Formats: sequence, C-alpha cells, structure tokens
Amino acid sequence: MNIPNESKKRIVIVGGGFGGLHFAKSMANAGFQLVLLDKQNYHAFQPLFYQVATAGLEPGSIAYPFRKIFSGKKDFYFRMTEVLEIKAESNTICTTIGELYYDYLIIATGATSNFFGLDNIEQRSMPMKSVSEALDIRSLLLQNFEKALLSDDLKEREALMSVIIVGGGPTGVELAGAIAELRKDILPKDYPDLDVRAMDVHLIEANDRLLKVMSSFSSENAYNALKSMGVDIWLNTRVKDYDGKKVFCSDGRELSGAMLIWAAGVKAAIPGGISVEKISGGRIKVDENCRVIGLSNVFAIGDAAEFCTEVFPNGLPMVAQPAIQQGRYLASNFKRSLDVESWKSFEYKDLGSMATIGRNKAVTELPKVKLKGWIAWIAWLFVHIYQLVGFRNKLVVLINWALNYFRHSRDLRLIIRPFKRNS
Amino acid sequence: MNIPNESKKRIVIVGGGFGGLHFAKSMANAGFQLVLLDKQNYHAFQPLFYQVATAGLEPGSIAYPFRKIFSGKKDFYFRMTEVLEIKAESNTICTTIGELYYDYLIIATGATSNFFGLDNIEQRSMPMKSVSEALDIRSLLLQNFEKALLSDDLKEREALMSVIIVGGGPTGVELAGAIAELRKDILPKDYPDLDVRAMDVHLIEANDRLLKVMSSFSSENAYNALKSMGVDIWLNTRVKDYDGKKVFCSDGRELSGAMLIWAAGVKAAIPGGISVEKISGGRIKVDENCRVIGLSNVFAIGDAAEFCTEVFPNGLPMVAQPAIQQGRYLASNFKRSLDVESWKSFEYKDLGSMATIGRNKAVTELPKVKLKGWIAWIAWLFVHIYQLVGFRNKLVVLINWALNYFRHSRDLRLIIRPFKRNS
Repeated sequence: MNIPNESKKRIVIVGGGFGGLHFAKSMANAGFQLVLLDKQNYHAFQPLFYQVATAGLEPGSIAYPFRKIFSGKKDFYFRMTEVLEIKAESNTICTTIGELYYDYLIIATGATSNFFGLDNIEQRSMPMKSVSEALDIRSLLLQNFEKALLSDDLKEREALMSVIIVGGGPTGVELAGAIAELRKDILPKDYPDLDVRAMDVHLIEANDRLLKVMSSFSSENAYNALKSMGVDIWLNTRVKDYDGKKVFCSDGRELSGAMLIWAAGVKAAIPGGISVEKISGGRIKVDENCRVIGLSNVFAIGDAAEFCTEVFPNGLPMVAQPAIQQGRYLASNFKRSLDVESWKSFEYKDLGSMATIGRNKAVTELPKVKLKGWIAWIAWLFVHIYQLVGFRNKLVVLINWALNYFRHSRDLRLIIRPFKRNS
Repeated sequence: MNIPNESKKRIVIVGGGFGGLHFAKSMANAGFQLVLLDKQNYHAFQPLFYQVATAGLEPGSIAYPFRKIFSGKKDFYFRMTEVLEIKAESNTICTTIGELYYDYLIIATGATSNFFGLDNIEQRSMPMKSVSEALDIRSLLLQNFEKALLSDDLKEREALMSVIIVGGGPTGVELAGAIAELRKDILPKDYPDLDVRAMDVHLIEANDRLLKVMSSFSSENAYNALKSMGVDIWLNTRVKDYDGKKVFCSDGRELSGAMLIWAAGVKAAIPGGISVEKISGGRIKVDENCRVIGLSNVFAIGDAAEFCTEVFPNGLPMVAQPAIQQGRYLASNFKRSLDVESWKSFEYKDLGSMATIGRNKAVTELPKVKLKGWIAWIAWLFVHIYQLVGFRNKLVVLINWALNYFRHSRDLRLIIRPFKRNS
C-alpha cells in the first residue's frame, strides 16, 4: 500500500465507525502517522439508518466523508479498502489493496448482521447495517406497495403491504414506530386505491419484553406506545423460517409479509487472522486496556471487542457509547505514554440509552432519571443532532425533522435504485 | 392494469418529466380520469443532475415523488411501469404491467442518450440522463481518485484523475465548470498525497463554439470562463473511439482520462408502435396542436415531439421550456374543448436560456437582454430554485448552495454505491 515510511510510529485503524473515528480524531496531529482503513469513504451515523429506510432523511445527511473530517491533518492517510487478514507475528495487515506494516493496530471493525444460521432468512430478509441496506429497505417498501396495486388477490395484496420486523431492540422499535407512522400519515394518501388498513406491522421479539437493554419502565412504555400505533407485537417468539411471504415462528404461528427486516442480531466483524482462542462470545477478547489478549500492540474497541465488567460480564453493549469512550481512552493514553502497562484501566461510563418510537414519543434513560413521552423525545432529538458529524448535516437533518414534524410528511419516498434480490 | 373504468374520458400520460408533469398538474380535477405512467416513482429535475454528479446536491433534493405531487387529486392514477408498445388502432398501450385502454394518449417520454452508433463509447462512457446515472458519475469520480492513490505509474495516475466531457452544450459546460471547481477547492485538500495539478478536465465539442443553442456572446463568455478555470476545450473536434483510458478524436488527437462523460447527444425516447413514417429527425412528427400526424387522439410533447416553427425548422430545442409550455397548452385546450380542430395552434414562447459555469459565473439570455457573470449567475439561481418541485427541496437546495458557496465546499463526496461497469 502506498503509505510513506516515516520516522513516526504508524498506527493503523481498521474501521471508521464511532470507535475508529473518535480515536483517529483525538489522535490527529499527535506525532503519530495515522492510517485509517474503511470499506466506505464516509463515516455513517448508524442510529439514524432507520430514518433513511423510512424516507425521512437522505443518506447524505447522515454520512460524512472521512477525507473532509481529516482535511488538513498531518500524517493522516485514508484508504478505502477491506482488510483480509491480520498477521500479528509480522505486524502487518493484508488488504484488498496490498499489505501494510503497523506499529500499533486498532481493530474497530464494528458488527454485521447475525442470522444465527437461518439461511432462508439471511437470503430473503432485509438487514440494515449499512446506508445502502437502509436505502434498499426504503425502495422495497415502496416497490411492494406499487406491486400491491397490481394484484387482485386480497391475500397477496395484504402480504405485499405488510412488514415484519424481527428484533425488539432499539433498531426494531424505532423502525416499527416509523413504519407505523408511514402507515398512518403517508401511505393512505399516496395509495388511495389500496386499503392501507390491511397493512400489518409486526414486531417479533424472542425475549419477554422489548428493549431488554433498558429498564422495564422503558420496555413497557415502548410496548404501550407501539401498541397504540397499531403495531402487532409478538413477545417470547422466535422465528424459524421465512419463505419470502410468510415467516414461521417457533410456536407454530405464521405471519405474512413480503418484507422481513432483520434487526434481531449482530455479531462482531472479526478480520481474518485473529485466532479462535482470542475470540469469546463472537467478539475479540481484550484486557483492561482494550488490548487484544496475547498481543502487545493490537487493540480492539467497540462492537468488535469483548470488554467485560461487573455490570456487563458478557461485554459492553454493542452501541455507540462504548466505542466512542474506548476510542477516546486509547487516544488519550497513546498521547501520554506508549508504555501500556502504565495505563489506567478503561472504565465505561454508562451515559444512558434512548429509543424513539414516533412523534413526541420516546424513552430515554439517563443515569439518574428515566423519561418517556414528549420530553424523552426532545432529549432524543438533541442528542442525535449534537452527535451528527458536520454542520451541514446537523442543519439539513434539523430542517427535515421540522418539516416532517409540522407537515406530517416524509418527502423522500423515492425509488432511486430499485431493490433486486440476488438469486 | 388495475385502473377502474369510469364514465369519464381516460387520458393516459406516458412520462412524468417536465411535459407530462405540467400537463397532469394542470389537468387535475378537470373531469377526466388521468393515468400517469413513468419508469420512476418521482419527477426528476434534470437541469440539476450535474450538481448531484459533482457532490453538490443529494438526489432527494431534486427528485419529488409523483404520489406526493398528486396527493388528494381525484381520478388520478399513477403506475410505475415501462411502456412497451402503443396500439393506436385499438387505443391501447401495452406496458410491463399489462394493457390499458385510452381515450387520449399523451406521449411525453423525453429523451435518452444518443451515442450515434459509437459502441465502445456507449459501453465505456458515463451518460447523465437519470438520477442514478448522475450518482454513478459521482461515485466513479471518487473511486478513480481512490485508485489513483494506489498507482505508482504517473501516467496511469493522471489518467485516473482526468475527466473527459464530450459535448459543449449546457450540460457539458455546467459539468466542466463544476468539476474544475472540485479540482480547485476540494480535491487538493482531500488528496494531499496526489498532485491534483496533473488532473485534466477536457471538454470536447464538435462545433466551432460552445453553447451553440445560445448566442456567440454567451459562447465566448462560457469559453473564456472555462478557460480561466483551467478547462481544456477542444472545439471542432469529434470523438471516434474510447478504450476506457484514452479517447481518440477524428483529427488524430488522443486525450487520456479514465472517465468519459457523454453529454454530446440525446435522442427522443420513442415508444414501440409508432410507425416509421410518423418519425422525423428521430422525433415524433406532430401538427400545430401537438397531435401525432395521422392519429386523432394521440399527442406528443417535449423532447419526444418534433414541433417545427420558422425559427426552429428542425423542431424546438430539447430543453424544459417547450415541454412545459406544450403540456400546459394541451391541458388548457382539453379543458376547453375536446374538438381538437377548434384549437388554436401551439405557439412557442422563447423565454431564453441559461447555463451556469461556476461560482459567480453564468450566461443568461432573456428575450431582450443577455447577461454574464455575477448577475447572470444570480438569475440562474433564482430560476432554478423557483422551478424545483416542493418546498422542502427548494429550502434544502438553497441551504446547500449557501453553504457550498460560503465554505467553498461540497460535502456529498460519498460513494454510497460503488459504480461497477457491467461487462
């Protein structure tokens, strides 16, 4: 790979999600050579993918080019590539565009969808772990409605209109709410010749409550809010199979829907070359300094890493905060000393969690207070606007939200690239 | 096709570009059944495609869903489909989703790229006649820069960075200007390890001047402005062939560039079933009422139609204004009387033409005055904001333009879907 050899130590960062981005930003101009590798040329703000999927925001509003973020930074190199293998014994990584030596390596590869071996679901469902996948969901939702118009078969029509979401975590809850709002505000006007009341929005969760990462207060609240919006919620229900029209649940129940959105599981995206004994629960085992067990100069952060604490014995939650905090922790320590043994342990600060359900409806848990309804929703809005990268993005998202709110509208119901399933 | 049979006369409109859209909008709630057919589910504002291609605007800012435009209109039906054949003898059209009877048919199919039989160019160049193609240009431009970083071969690097635009009409001029601005303001900052000065922007035109649809005043002005921005302009030059790296001109000249944008020709998109004798100069022959020669209830407007006048003996220019005016003309006459013989002839009002070249630079020709520079540029901005469909689009475009202007920036340099050539 064409990266100049300098006298400075080279830190290679794999992945520009929350963890990699915050590490790299904090490390800029700190006397190291930084090399950021990512499959995309932009940082994508995952918490708002569901709004891209439901025609509320454009992809450009939640994505920001890496080269712009690091514009003017010295000794910073970005390469758009995929990492194939880490060769720890020689301190090199192999990528689709060649090999590269590293002095320090930060694995911040994030997570991908986990289908738990359900092949039919993997082939026929819609995951939402990239901007592109979010756009596919938007397209397919609209394509299915266009198709429903052409059908004389009532059952087929209903199936084409209906959406099944598997997974009652924040992603599933937010999607269910947003799709229920489309059904209420937009689709009946757009498709007056369809009986949109026949459209079902199913939300399937294997646990006995939604949002199990949050408190029962929030779970109940989300449940009631979604129920009031007409979402069919199936708790304690596992999906077994999907034939493209019907999902088959473990309790024998069958639900029809031509679109199944998979929000039920993620797994760490572990690059090749990380040996089995370094992996636990599908994530890379790290010590208290986020260092990969057994390797002196390789670190893993965010979703990719299994950092265990008393409160989280199976690893920190796979959300933005642990990744951001770990990225910053590593950066501040690297800047202080290269003697890792001298570092203090990483300590995770739980800043709370939140999920929006719809118009004026959200649940927000801060360390000392639990909010619901309107106030939780406002909190959610501010936190997300604040976290977006780039002034233009903040402004454009704010304007879109204001217009969507006051006009009960979603203007981006565009099928720019029709979704076609590879088969 | 699932369209209810009503006692009202059914008007089928093929194509929701400027002509079809303005006809349909003027005809809404006028006592007819309207059926609008289009391959896309949105109206796309073609004059700003070049800004999508050059990372200045998002596709969602220049596209607007048909269903939103016609929301609440009675007896209006939209179907997303492609027309295969017109069967005038039985008053039916065949589409990919079935047949449909019409009382009146409006052909507003617009135009597609014309490669004049140059197969290699058709296969290897980038046209820009759809939102999707504009996004492909954006992606490829950025992908080529990422690739250039990996090459040690100076010649290859230069070719990967360089862009060849064929066609010196408004589209070619606007693209050349926008890409020259990227080269000046954005790319050197984004790619400090590339020598962006080695990037060429070629603009090739077969005629002896740019913007031949406008006056020599504007041609010279555009020429000088582009020259001052470092665009290499080749007048009186035809392209013969392209191998993906080099374009071969008829005078023996060879220019290298890994991206060739084809803006050199369009041809009417004529649906099947229109017989040869009804076609002239590649467009559908129409009478003074925009009616297809020899057919009593079929009309053609805009790019698809060859409407000849004294000033334009080979048909009106293939731009927005003739389409819009013809659409409105047909609508107002339909609403007045179905006796086409009683209609006054269509009269084209030349409102002028304009092309933007860059920051504070444009040429604008109004019926009585020719403008250049800053004032022409302001005129261009206002006209385009005014013509955009939808308040959100107007606002978001305005904000993007303001930010791009004051910050010399284009934030949307995102490769959301990498361009892959089918081969």
